[in-house]
Amino acid sequence: MLNKNVLNFIGCDCGYDEAETVLFGAPFDSTTSFRPGARFGCQAVRMESFGLETYSPYQDRDLSEAGVFDSGDLELPMGDTGLSLELIEERCGRILEDGKRPFMIGGEHLVTLGSIRAVRRKYSDLRIIHLDAHADLRDDYLGVKYSHACVMRRCWELLGDGHIFQFGIRSGDREEFEWARGGHVEMHPFRLEGIGDAVRRLSDCPIYLTLDLDVLDPSVFPGTGTPEAGGAGFMELLEALLEICENSTIVGCDVVELSPHYDASGVSTAAAGKLIRELLLGMQH
Amino acid sequence: MLNKNVLNFIGCDCGYDEAETVLFGAPFDSTTSFRPGARFGCQAVRMESFGLETYSPYQDRDLSEAGVFDSGDLELPMGDTGLSLELIEERCGRILEDGKRPFMIGGEHLVTLGSIRAVRRKYSDLRIIHLDAHADLRDDYLGVKYSHACVMRRCWELLGDGHIFQFGIRSGDREEFEWARGGHVEMHPFRLEGIGDAVRRLSDCPIYLTLDLDVLDPSVFPGTGTPEAGGAGFMELLEALLEICENSTIVGCDVVELSPHYDASGVSTAAAGKLIRELLLGMQH
Amino acid sequence: MLNKNVLNFIGCDCGYDEAETVLFGAPFDSTTSFRPGARFGCQAVRMESFGLETYSPYQDRDLSEAGVFDSGDLELPMGDTGLSLELIEERCGRILEDGKRPFMIGGEHLVTLGSIRAVRRKYSDLRIIHLDAHADLRDDYLGVKYSHACVMRRCWELLGDGHIFQFGIRSGDREEFEWARGGHVEMHPFRLEGIGDAVRRLSDCPIYLTLDLDVLDPSVFPGTGTPEAGGAGFMELLEALLEICENSTIVGCDVVELSPHYDASGVSTAAAGKLIRELLLGMQH
Amino acid sequence: MLNKNVLNFIGCDCGYDEAETVLFGAPFDSTTSFRPGARFGCQAVRMESFGLETYSPYQDRDLSEAGVFDSGDLELPMGDTGLSLELIEERCGRILEDGKRPFMIGGEHLVTLGSIRAVRRKYSDLRIIHLDAHADLRDDYLGVKYSHACVMRRCWELLGDGHIFQFGIRSGDREEFEWARGGHVEMHPFRLEGIGDAVRRLSDCPIYLTLDLDVLDPSVFPGTGTPEAGGAGFMELLEALLEICENSTIVGCDVVELSPHYDASGVSTAAAGKLIRELLLGMQH
Amino acid sequence: MLNKNVLNFIGCDCGYDEAETVLFGAPFDSTTSFRPGARFGCQAVRMESFGLETYSPYQDRDLSEAGVFDSGDLELPMGDTGLSLELIEERCGRILEDGKRPFMIGGEHLVTLGSIRAVRRKYSDLRIIHLDAHADLRDDYLGVKYSHACVMRRCWELLGDGHIFQFGIRSGDREEFEWARGGHVEMHPFRLEGIGDAVRRLSDCPIYLTLDLDVLDPSVFPGTGTPEAGGAGFMELLEALLEICENSTIVGCDVVELSPHYDASGVSTAAAGKLIRELLLGMQH
Amino acid sequence: MLNKNVLNFIGCDCGYDEAETVLFGAPFDSTTSFRPGARFGCQAVRMESFGLETYSPYQDRDLSEAGVFDSGDLELPMGDTGLSLELIEERCGRILEDGKRPFMIGGEHLVTLGSIRAVRRKYSDLRIIHLDAHADLRDDYLGVKYSHACVMRRCWELLGDGHIFQFGIRSGDREEFEWARGGHVEMHPFRLEGIGDAVRRLSDCPIYLTLDLDVLDPSVFPGTGTPEAGGAGFMELLEALLEICENSTIVGCDVVELSPHYDASGVSTAAAGKLIRELLLGMQH
Repeated sequence: MLNKNVLNFIGCDCGYDEAETVLFGAPFDSTTSFRPGARFGCQAVRMESFGLETYSPYQDRDLSEAGVFDSGDLELPMGDTGLSLELIEERCGRILEDGKRPFMIGGEHLVTLGSIRAVRRKYSDLRIIHLDAHADLRDDYLGVKYSHACVMRRCWELLGDGHIFQFGIRSGDREEFEWARGGHVEMHPFRLEGIGDAVRRLSDCPIYLTLDLDVLDPSVFPGTGTPEAGGAGFMELLEALLEICENSTIVGCDVVELSPHYDASGVSTAAAGKLIRELLLGMQH
Repeated sequence: MLNKNVLNFIGCDCGYDEAETVLFGAPFDSTTSFRPGARFGCQAVRMESFGLETYSPYQDRDLSEAGVFDSGDLELPMGDTGLSLELIEERCGRILEDGKRPFMIGGEHLVTLGSIRAVRRKYSDLRIIHLDAHADLRDDYLGVKYSHACVMRRCWELLGDGHIFQFGIRSGDREEFEWARGGHVEMHPFRLEGIGDAVRRLSDCPIYLTLDLDVLDPSVFPGTGTPEAGGAGFMELLEALLEICENSTIVGCDVVELSPHYDASGVSTAAAGKLIRELLLGMQH
Repeated sequence: MLNKNVLNFIGCDCGYDEAETVLFGAPFDSTTSFRPGARFGCQAVRMESFGLETYSPYQDRDLSEAGVFDSGDLELPMGDTGLSLELIEERCGRILEDGKRPFMIGGEHLVTLGSIRAVRRKYSDLRIIHLDAHADLRDDYLGVKYSHACVMRRCWELLGDGHIFQFGIRSGDREEFEWARGGHVEMHPFRLEGIGDAVRRLSDCPIYLTLDLDVLDPSVFPGTGTPEAGGAGFMELLEALLEICENSTIVGCDVVELSPHYDASGVSTAAAGKLIRELLLGMQH
Repeated sequence: MLNKNVLNFIGCDCGYDEAETVLFGAPFDSTTSFRPGARFGCQAVRMESFGLETYSPYQDRDLSEAGVFDSGDLELPMGDTGLSLELIEERCGRILEDGKRPFMIGGEHLVTLGSIRAVRRKYSDLRIIHLDAHADLRDDYLGVKYSHACVMRRCWELLGDGHIFQFGIRSGDREEFEWARGGHVEMHPFRLEGIGDAVRRLSDCPIYLTLDLDVLDPSVFPGTGTPEAGGAGFMELLEALLEICENSTIVGCDVVELSPHYDASGVSTAAAGKLIRELLLGMQH
Repeated sequence: MLNKNVLNFIGCDCGYDEAETVLFGAPFDSTTSFRPGARFGCQAVRMESFGLETYSPYQDRDLSEAGVFDSGDLELPMGDTGLSLELIEERCGRILEDGKRPFMIGGEHLVTLGSIRAVRRKYSDLRIIHLDAHADLRDDYLGVKYSHACVMRRCWELLGDGHIFQFGIRSGDREEFEWARGGHVEMHPFRLEGIGDAVRRLSDCPIYLTLDLDVLDPSVFPGTGTPEAGGAGFMELLEALLEICENSTIVGCDVVELSPHYDASGVSTAAAGKLIRELLLGMQH
Repeated sequence: MLNKNVLNFIGCDCGYDEAETVLFGAPFDSTTSFRPGARFGCQAVRMESFGLETYSPYQDRDLSEAGVFDSGDLELPMGDTGLSLELIEERCGRILEDGKRPFMIGGEHLVTLGSIRAVRRKYSDLRIIHLDAHADLRDDYLGVKYSHACVMRRCWELLGDGHIFQFGIRSGDREEFEWARGGHVEMHPFRLEGIGDAVRRLSDCPIYLTLDLDVLDPSVFPGTGTPEAGGAGFMELLEALLEICENSTIVGCDVVELSPHYDASGVSTAAAGKLIRELLLGMQH
């Protein structure tokens, strides 16, 4: 008898029961205001992962030994933000209940809110490390509260002051920067400097890492909806991520805003896949 | 003193008061389930209209004499379908109140619903002529009622049985085809045949024409979210449109589902612009 | 417990035991002489099948009731033609032994040879219906015998004179056309005319259908390695395929030469998917 | 000793002395008003000719026996229209002096003027057969007399009334159409019908054939600067060209307006190459 | 009454009378020798500016308060270099007469000559700061004097020795480099080092800044006609520009050579828009 | 009499007898496992070389004085690896016999093996300097020994331990890294550091330089089959290459893995061309 066509992110072939980390995709981009297409990110990164090796020479570890299960992509209804966030929360909650770490691949950044809702029910002392080009701190965007441009503001409403740590931010309106400086969040603009210090200060807290890939410079990562020049280099980001992994306990994670239609050459999808591999390997214990 | 940069669809330079027809764009694609990007359609077709002539050798008429005012694009909030439909209804209503004919360029097909809400308030006896590859008759799509895939069903809820005439339909699920055969709408599958007959039967009724450009064969019109092989040729569609214009009173109109990111060569945008020119010229009286 | 990520061609969710037809992909293009990339065809058509409906209004049938199992793609070693053909022959043979019909998606056209080797072991009286822009009748190409450009000549070596029926051929060197006229194969150049007659003459024989998608005109199907202007329209091909299905017993089938990297708009992949759906539905009994 | 890298259009390997026809490229597009890039046409069609066969099954002839020499591309100074036209006239004149037929590949349509200047010096009774989507009959374009949009008007100034026969025209301003109807040129709008009649009427005159490839429908030929929907199919054009070849004496020829940057799939370049092959074969005597 | 569709660069909504700086586009690329398309740069950067914020976190300033009026694009006749330069000179002169600073967006680099002609009439002591990958110092290019490749030589003819300061130059022929070393211009090859020193030396002179965007490395800015590897990083350029703004009086400015057709991902257009925003903010006083 | 169309890499117009270096292309990619298309690299880099200057401001030398002959591309049979390697070996051997230096442009990396076979026959003490993102040290890949992924292992079989020096390696499976550490080759992972030391140690040995362009970061060089983030910058690589040229005797060289179909903007092809120019200039003596 022949087998069905199972498609996993490369090397993520662990059984569910044995898995420490569970991948899933959240192909949603219904609130994207500029250039849509992040919905294709999770599918593309899985397909293109076969251009990667499972082995990391940076960490001398191999994905095939990393205890990762790939549960595929959610089916999310475009045009219904509320229901989509519920479906994400449910999947994420299920993984946490089973004692595993959720690893979500977006989709646009709003999907983080669904995940945070589930993770904070389990970890009340949660801190968010947020790497991004954009502050995402608006109270609303053209009247819409549940928008990618507001996602960190919505997360702040759940977690309160001092629980969100932002790095790499280089775009927003004046109000967002002023609101951040008001002490609600700890914002490190422009670069990733200071991330090591912050992580070491937070070493006792459960950490949720949300990586908006547009924190990378568009030269490295053109394939995203709103490219913002002046960002981080690939090795700068990789080193920051490995520092986070080493010095903290990541209880949940997401990687968002790969938009493969703006990635004619495929370099963005390949870079995203490599970062996901390194995160999956680095979060292991 | 220098002037501000006014950008109109080519030849649509009439003053508002003198205008018979008023163009506007509805850059919304938040419910698109497969490949988004129709939001860029109205902007692209306006920009690329400068590759066209204002003169039509088919009708021996010129756009510069056709009484068309271009009121630009609405600013629609992605992720908030309800508010977006209200803004469309409002713009369309305003144009109708001023005694002019609204001509909307999408965006995805759901925008038609906003326009129909306004037009039927003025014309209670309204009929819809619907050219499309897809039936768009689902009651819901993944639980979402206000979806592009349901737009004709929502219009039917407003207008009732026998008021919608569909042509070119070649995709849908079994239920949609059966529901159509139940007499709710008059569906002519596959081709545009019969459109002349239908139009002549309806010659006493006010007509709203909704043209989903994917009714064209993808060879002619690749730049759309869900290309469906086996459609109409360009001249076949142009002749059908001119026949509608000649034999009926069009009180409102839209052209939707141009998605320029899937139109690497620009031929779809150019074809859309040419069809819009011919419709604007043909609807004059 | 969450499930693994199973990815099938849309609607092909039948269990293996119940299946009448078994799909598999042969992602091989190592002998392509002009523009490679057909290796990505089978994967792309599966992914993009989700833009299709499972229901065919042409046949009033639905893929979810068609008894099709999708066994995924073979892993074929680029650079080793012999081994790749063996792996194809093995998969195809296995499906035939289990009493099912193999349906292969290429890949370049040479993959047909692997399949024919298996099918003719079971059906000694096999006939091949071959739709293609290119004759593929060379004895060798730059000294290479196992090349896409020679595949029908290699099949002829297995089946002998009078067993291959070619339609739509519009490219080849003078020798190929003369060799064909020598009575070895029955070649119908340029168009698909005569296919109904041929099929009815063959109604008692087991048929293998090999569809090189470049038989379509490049306007309809640009996404292929060697586009050749002057080909069949989509409806012309669809009608020919349905005529074959209705009047013959297809015991094996392949669809080859989709090369998605030359399909910027996606229309070729969508057309291929629709033809595969129609063939899967039409071959049922 | 190794040889230099000689690059010819496929099969055009005849020596200069033996040649009946001499190919050259005119990579100029400096006056293109909408989308430039036709300068790349001649180079692209030569490179991609290797995806063609030298043999034509339509004419049962082979390019390797057709007596064609490829003299490569001129080096034309962008920004200097006058000098560019002189260089074209000089190359063309040289070929005619040597008793051969010039065959120019553009470039934009203005290059035809350089060629006509040379050809009419030799053939005072010259007639032009002009296949195009655009009339190109403006007296000036934004004040520029030597523009692609005026090229046929400039040719008319050289040849006088009744010497230019246009087919397929479907775009222009009102003045161009009226001027044509004034009897200066014989314009057959929209399609290629009537071309056989005209050619037979002209069978005693030397003919210059200028083929603007945008006469083809953009579905068949997207790769051009100003695609204009509603054009000729490939077979319709091929049959018209073969009819011209058979019934007239072509003393010079050009094929213009391939713009490969708008031809992501390569189908336009392939179609242009095939038409050039058929013309080169058809013009032989 | 509805309004006409006014399209400005984001945040440039100041009235003309109040404006300190006036934007205009010069969509000309008729002399481009390699890959054309810079004509589309000004339009593209305006459209894509809506992916930017009006607020700069680098300068803590907002475009909506920067006193910028956008006067749209000139209509320039391709193929007529002389007339095009006159139209640019006229627009630029008009802005200067009204006591405002002209800010031109190209187009190819030759457009700078039109602007310099106007600016030097008002500022006889003008100095040019020129950032570019290419020296643009040829006396002619294929016999053409008014070519993008000669633009700085033509400017030198107007301003004389010692008035032009070049940075980032990494391409040219041997003669250009030797001519520069002859003391006619001050050329700083390869990088932007020394720009601070130069600007401080020039702090008493009126400065015209001409920024050829290909001074950026192609990784950051692929979307240009002649990409030249080994250029400046985005932050390196931004810092240099802010240093110029702070330490000098810019009386005119242009940003040229964005060619959006070579910018599939959009990152170049986005980077250009961000640099324009920063320049508009930095030049304010 | 007109000349044939000779096409050389820019400035490589030396006669064969006078030439010190002989260029040739090896358009082969039949074993590429992930994304094919490197076969188009040699042709593309030659065509696009006309966007470069022949003069290098880095070395103050000019290609037109560098003694380079361009012998064009081999015609290699896709699907027949053995024969293809033989044809490469033969061309390379011929050039060496004539006392000249072979400079091969790929194609995929396996082509290096053909070249090494010829070069080591002449230089028994040969050392290889290998710049690459990938180790290419597998013993086989899916059972295939003659694969791009095994090319350095095959070269090691010819040269033995300690003769291969790798730089920039950042991808491979665990076995490759361990095998390298076993002393068979000298691998410098991740960056190009140490290349100066190595070259000086090897200054007495004949050197073969093989440059897999994917050693560059994908931001600089997206146009390759398997982009691997975290690579070298352009200036870092250029400086390393000039250091090799200055301090060693290069007796043969290749540049491989440009895949222009993944290079929508053309920056990779332009960068490859510039590196080839610098190598051709730097290797002169």
